Amino acid sequence: MRVLGIDCGTEHTGYGLIESDGRIHRMIAAGCIHTSPKAPFESRLLTIARGLREVIATHTPDAAAVEAVFYAQNVKTALKLSHARGVVLMTIAEAGLYVGEYSPLEIKTSVVGEKQQVKLMVHSLLGLQAEIESEDACDAIAVAICHATHAGFQLQVGAAR
Amino acid sequence: MRVLGIDCGTEHTGYGLIESDGRIHRMIAAGCIHTSPKAPFESRLLTIARGLREVIATHTPDAAAVEAVFYAQNVKTALKLSHARGVVLMTIAEAGLYVGEYSPLEIKTSVVGEKQQVKLMVHSLLGLQAEIESEDACDAIAVAICHATHAGFQLQVGAAR
Repeated sequence: MRVLGIDCGTEHTGYGLIESDGRIHRMIAAGCIHTSPKAPFESRLLTIARGLREVIATHTPDAAAVEAVFYAQNVKTALKLSHARGVVLMTIAEAGLYVGEYSPLEIKTSVVGEKQQVKLMVHSLLGLQAEIESEDACDAIAVAICHATHAGFQLQVGAAR
Repeated sequence: MRVLGIDCGTEHTGYGLIESDGRIHRMIAAGCIHTSPKAPFESRLLTIARGLREVIATHTPDAAAVEAVFYAQNVKTALKLSHARGVVLMTIAEAGLYVGEYSPLEIKTSVVGEKQQVKLMVHSLLGLQAEIESEDACDAIAVAICHATHAGFQLQVGAAR
């Protein structure tokens, strides 16, 4: 199963693709869609949609996953983020993909450890030698691993019935 | 100038089109894009994008306008609304349209009076005999009138220079 993880943001939207059977994960691609803070907000949202469409067309994922909105942060930031997240969810639906949503805690737990350890664990789980440069791309990979793990578990449950 | 006003919502997204020279406004179309509360959130966002694309393709507006997000309301509601609003802004940008954003106060002021008077004033300003059924469509028309008034003023200022 090919899973696309997305770390939404108005300035940097990270994405990561993994091939996974629910236990063993292999990285296929990782990167980041950047938008210019100087551009009008609606143009930035369009850049995110177009970038994501290109990623989906290039890598043809089977499923996608995003982080749930967390309320703990600044409300103004959360509202801006939600605009980008709406565009991301719409673009995923447009591609006919199922989308999983996970809390930051679920994502951290699936790659083990705290935020600062996520990067290390992502590299370890995927057996990567070269470092993923973008932190957003790395977070996106963590989301993909989280979904692959959950989806893998669901598949096992489904098969056992 | 043909102005498209949009009243964003996850369940009902109202839209209204007016032809205006900044002073005299004529209604061209008004309606509402409905989404099913039972459908997955991402499908509902896609319904909004597709509905709005159809409205833009049919009525070819010259400009669009939306209400700014207001923080006073429930945060959870505001976050959901922002997802829909992000999709709306992206769809407008995709169509190559300039988008104006106005506060609820600016919109109310441009059609004069309080929320309950908006409907009456919209009908009066447009000289409508038949009633606009959808309240969301009516609010959208108010947004369009607001933008037409502001844009008209800007045009006058531009011409005077």
